[in-house]
Amino acid sequence: MRTEVAIIGAGPAGLLLSHLLARAGIESVVLETRSQEYVASRIRAGILEHSSVELLTEAGLGGRLRAEGHEHRGIYLQWPHERHHLDFVDLTGRSVWVYGQTEVQKDLVAARAAGGQAVLYETSDTRLHDLETDRPYVTYVDAGGVARRLDAAVVAGCDGSFGPSRAAVPPQAHQTFERTYPYSWLGILADVAPSTDELIYAWHPDGFALHSMRSPTVSRLYLQVPNGTDVAGWSDARIWDELAGRLGHGQDGWTLTPGPITDKSVLPMRSLVQSPMRHGRLFLAGDAAHIVPPTGAKGLNLAIADVALLSRALTALLRDGDAGPAERYSDDALRRVWRCTHFSWWMTTMLHASGDPFDAQLQLSQLRWVTTSPAGAAGLAENYAGLPIAG
Amino acid sequence: MRTEVAIIGAGPAGLLLSHLLARAGIESVVLETRSQEYVASRIRAGILEHSSVELLTEAGLGGRLRAEGHEHRGIYLQWPHERHHLDFVDLTGRSVWVYGQTEVQKDLVAARAAGGQAVLYETSDTRLHDLETDRPYVTYVDAGGVARRLDAAVVAGCDGSFGPSRAAVPPQAHQTFERTYPYSWLGILADVAPSTDELIYAWHPDGFALHSMRSPTVSRLYLQVPNGTDVAGWSDARIWDELAGRLGHGQDGWTLTPGPITDKSVLPMRSLVQSPMRHGRLFLAGDAAHIVPPTGAKGLNLAIADVALLSRALTALLRDGDAGPAERYSDDALRRVWRCTHFSWWMTTMLHASGDPFDAQLQLSQLRWVTTSPAGAAGLAENYAGLPIAG
Repeated sequence: MRTEVAIIGAGPAGLLLSHLLARAGIESVVLETRSQEYVASRIRAGILEHSSVELLTEAGLGGRLRAEGHEHRGIYLQWPHERHHLDFVDLTGRSVWVYGQTEVQKDLVAARAAGGQAVLYETSDTRLHDLETDRPYVTYVDAGGVARRLDAAVVAGCDGSFGPSRAAVPPQAHQTFERTYPYSWLGILADVAPSTDELIYAWHPDGFALHSMRSPTVSRLYLQVPNGTDVAGWSDARIWDELAGRLGHGQDGWTLTPGPITDKSVLPMRSLVQSPMRHGRLFLAGDAAHIVPPTGAKGLNLAIADVALLSRALTALLRDGDAGPAERYSDDALRRVWRCTHFSWWMTTMLHASGDPFDAQLQLSQLRWVTTSPAGAAGLAENYAGLPIAG
Repeated sequence: MRTEVAIIGAGPAGLLLSHLLARAGIESVVLETRSQEYVASRIRAGILEHSSVELLTEAGLGGRLRAEGHEHRGIYLQWPHERHHLDFVDLTGRSVWVYGQTEVQKDLVAARAAGGQAVLYETSDTRLHDLETDRPYVTYVDAGGVARRLDAAVVAGCDGSFGPSRAAVPPQAHQTFERTYPYSWLGILADVAPSTDELIYAWHPDGFALHSMRSPTVSRLYLQVPNGTDVAGWSDARIWDELAGRLGHGQDGWTLTPGPITDKSVLPMRSLVQSPMRHGRLFLAGDAAHIVPPTGAKGLNLAIADVALLSRALTALLRDGDAGPAERYSDDALRRVWRCTHFSWWMTTMLHASGDPFDAQLQLSQLRWVTTSPAGAAGLAENYAGLPIAG
């Protein structure tokens, strides 16, 4: 089989890339090791920054997002006895939208199906070959157990941190920058109306808590827990008690309404950047190139920004014979990646309890500063609401 | 001997406090363990923030400062192949002044001498007593070896991190927050015109460097060095070579002009906050309550801000019988102390090489952000040029 772009991975990055390429008249084939149902039901990010919403809308994917998603003007930042609202629209002119990654995925699957896109699920033993030539190819075993070969002009690695694309870059051809954090998140989904209109990021001496949401009837909440935490030790009652304490139930008349928990999981916190994001005819996008801790809500947005750059670069390369944007892709993408990596690291280290009293006082001083200084507030807001996607 | 305020320490904090109190008609006696010559010649900070200049001017101490000091609009931030100017006046409406602590000290000594102030140098065995009563007193041995007693309504501890005042607060009555850093500064004074009009803060993979100055003919420069560095290992030639490399000699036509080095020393980097800053009738100000690493140029400015608050609080207490400002002194001062402690920590950790490649990329991303985002630039500028001194 032959195509123009072989896309590894059918998550949001891979499907959006195939969608944008198709709009530019470029053919692609998408390979995915998981089943369609598995990919569709993964619970991931829920916040789209301004530029992501613009890009999805321009790509014809904004219909359900704008009808069913919820625009937020900002977030709440709090610590014991103080809750402050940061209004991103006032500060930067940009808002964010609550619209789950599962919903983005559904929209992409529907759009690609309507476009007659080939997405091959449940493939295995995917291997990338001849990436340093202009005739790369991918071998894999299809869902029926048959060995196949896919020839392409370009391979796009959109297969996450543990996929074969990242690993296909030789060790001497890249650098990996990495940071692990000494805490994880215990995340829940609950069938209950959110107790807040916008997200609450709560600093607390017992650990960070976040009140997020997926819809007017589904809440998403998180607790900082030690690494290695077993969800079995956290009953529903214990989770709601701890959330109530850290989020300030009862303060200034605010109450947290508990409800049935439908999902419970522990998420590790990690920062990782693989640089460069290109090796010959292999281009990495999204989690295949970088991982951020979820505190800054940047993972999905970075993937969308990568793919926006990459689709333009591949269009120039494959349609116009202009290799310039493809040559610049890694440098261009990495500037945003490092900005978001720094922001995610900053939000994470500002909000999570480390156990060091000096750290705690630094954190409170920063929180006071970003909630009272216009420059401090604007700095957080412009990073959270997101910078424009570079041309 | 009896006075209204017993001031321990004749550095800038102690002398400025005695000066401000005298202007309010309050009598004080200043005790100092060192000689007048030693205190006068200590080489310390060199940057006065906007509010410090205003306060010194209002206190009648601005004459020589404004005639001989140098107003700077901002600073340069650089990393290899890029140098950016941050203009604090454009960003915040506030400038900073280059005027050495030794000069501030001379002005204070002259002003106190003109006011007939008692400053007792070369005292020893200073002890603070009955601080929890309203009749505290200080015992000491004077320069002639005679044991003395000084009774007062209030004791002001302006005697730095290693003086007796800080140590006089019982362990159960305070908390100490502390951070040490894994690097020091090698600082030099050189008899050569500065090679720059404003300070250059240079990030470099080999370590931080700072080009500062004291006057049009005296340069002050610093190199990040490992803790435990012996100046004996650093010849003048080695120092100038290293400074040239880190500061970018030869880049874009910029050159560093070396000259005779007149002083060479290694400075440790430490953050420390003792909280509260009051114990009964003892009030701590300046380094007696807090230490910052020198990267943010905050040490002297924080001492001045403390003393401004404290002189008003003591005037209310001793002249008007209003204990409110004295009760609030510690909380009021600590808000600024923690803001500056955070800023100093942030400048320090953003600019010094840690040896971790992930840190290096975070640092460069932050430097790019504060030099290109108006919010990022304003955030750094408002902290560096200094917040107004609270009422």
